Amino acid sequence: MEKGEFGLIDWIRKQVKVPDGVLGIGDDCAVLPQHDGLETLVTTDMLVEGVHFLLDDIDPYSLGWKSAAVNLSDIAGMGGKPVGTFLSIALPKGLSDSYLERFFEGYKALSDRFSCPLLGGDTTASPDRLCINVTVLGTCAAGQSRKRSAAQPGDLICVTGTLGDSAGGLKVVLDNLEKNGEEGVLRERHYRPVPKVEEGMSLAATPGINAMMDISDGIGSDLRHILEESGAGARVDVRSLPLSAELRTVCARRGWDPVGLAAGGGEDYELLFTCRPGTKVPVPHTVIGEILASPGLRWEGTDKDFTGFRHF
Amino acid sequence: MEKGEFGLIDWIRKQVKVPDGVLGIGDDCAVLPQHDGLETLVTTDMLVEGVHFLLDDIDPYSLGWKSAAVNLSDIAGMGGKPVGTFLSIALPKGLSDSYLERFFEGYKALSDRFSCPLLGGDTTASPDRLCINVTVLGTCAAGQSRKRSAAQPGDLICVTGTLGDSAGGLKVVLDNLEKNGEEGVLRERHYRPVPKVEEGMSLAATPGINAMMDISDGIGSDLRHILEESGAGARVDVRSLPLSAELRTVCARRGWDPVGLAAGGGEDYELLFTCRPGTKVPVPHTVIGEILASPGLRWEGTDKDFTGFRHF
Repeated sequence: MEKGEFGLIDWIRKQVKVPDGVLGIGDDCAVLPQHDGLETLVTTDMLVEGVHFLLDDIDPYSLGWKSAAVNLSDIAGMGGKPVGTFLSIALPKGLSDSYLERFFEGYKALSDRFSCPLLGGDTTASPDRLCINVTVLGTCAAGQSRKRSAAQPGDLICVTGTLGDSAGGLKVVLDNLEKNGEEGVLRERHYRPVPKVEEGMSLAATPGINAMMDISDGIGSDLRHILEESGAGARVDVRSLPLSAELRTVCARRGWDPVGLAAGGGEDYELLFTCRPGTKVPVPHTVIGEILASPGLRWEGTDKDFTGFRHF
Repeated sequence: MEKGEFGLIDWIRKQVKVPDGVLGIGDDCAVLPQHDGLETLVTTDMLVEGVHFLLDDIDPYSLGWKSAAVNLSDIAGMGGKPVGTFLSIALPKGLSDSYLERFFEGYKALSDRFSCPLLGGDTTASPDRLCINVTVLGTCAAGQSRKRSAAQPGDLICVTGTLGDSAGGLKVVLDNLEKNGEEGVLRERHYRPVPKVEEGMSLAATPGINAMMDISDGIGSDLRHILEESGAGARVDVRSLPLSAELRTVCARRGWDPVGLAAGGGEDYELLFTCRPGTKVPVPHTVIGEILASPGLRWEGTDKDFTGFRHF
């Protein structure tokens, strides 16, 4: 039997000896200590045509934007300040220079929001599909980056922003629905997510904020990572999941289930974090549940289970 | 007219504002200052099935080895000490776990030589082709990393090791020649290059060593990068290019031109550096030419030109 995505990652993780003081595989970013009271954060993500995007469905500006955003979101998920990005790109022959220029404009527009310059990369040919890999370096005060493993029983489980908009936007794209109105808002949320970099930095500077990560595969999957790494369980009330007015409207109009999109859909790039009750949380957020000592993820207010997205 | 690989890189480079003290696009690695007398070096490279390798031609162990080696070689090219690697991999469905395990064993065997652990990455599905991206972080004493831009007229041009073995090995593979004897040695040099990490560190610690880079696309291409970045020219005597006994033997047997392979062939992963005459060079090397004030690359001992490899 094949291991599957997370089985393979586990197997690799067991083979590697990580130096003392370094955080390796298993979180949003690796964390390497520096000698001057800082930590270096590193994250990397690959986007493959036909898996993560279709050239006909996404415009080059949005693709560039999103390629940067998903990686900056991993830095945000640990509370880091991004300092530079590295872009590798394998280019099929048919792609014009103007496509690449638009791609790079989108990439730069998102990166510039966070004053995070492109510092290097690799360009190569591809036989057919566009393939993109982005690596981002960030920094954090030593010991301040927030790990998946730090959740404690009794912690409140919180999320920033609203959930499910990106998954709704993907349905809008795939079903070829309107580009304007509420559908257009969801589409934009899917194509041009804005990672919560400042929010992540504020949270990392706040005592009482324990575990944190970004929401990329849907909370049904992402929260399980926190539970596994922390050796804990959780209950989540799906009735408390924050839904945007646009998502509610589109779901009512189309007969979609907003809760399924919010709990099981990916690519929100919001922050998921846990905190001690009574913590002065410095950013807008919604409490969606509680960390428990007993293992497992219990959904309340539904009889469904939501597992989120796996690549294979 | 389309820009081509280096035109595209130049265009991107002009768009980016790099912070003071940071070295961005245009060298083997980016260089970011730290506050404690160190620099962080970062390099990233993408390998695409059908462009950089064919699954039928290279075994998974060698592919893993080489994926790590080509990136560690960029750290070596600036004189850095590698501290950690990051591996992104897009996996087509047909690839078995045992293939991936062998891949990772090769990756780890090369990385372990330089005590450089895998600290993170990304695994994803691919519709068809295997795509690999590796990022490596390294460190160097502040100001000590060697740049492409530092060549001075009058510098001697030097290389470590021998040139052309990997290009010869590629011909051995493509022509389906013997796996043993001298052909086997060249094949091994192509599949399992050993980056010159210790040599790079020694050279970076030596006053009088000016420009340095690794040889990945062939000196005909790589030396031109040094000349462009340094605003200089060069003469290179092809009769002085260091050739291995195995390359000479195979070329004599097969009627191949060893000089063309040594000057125009890629993937040697040796070091190319320039130094002031009289410098005590701490590693075995061969002087192949001289940096000139007037622009252009002049080949001596041949009436050919050697341009090296371009991806598109």
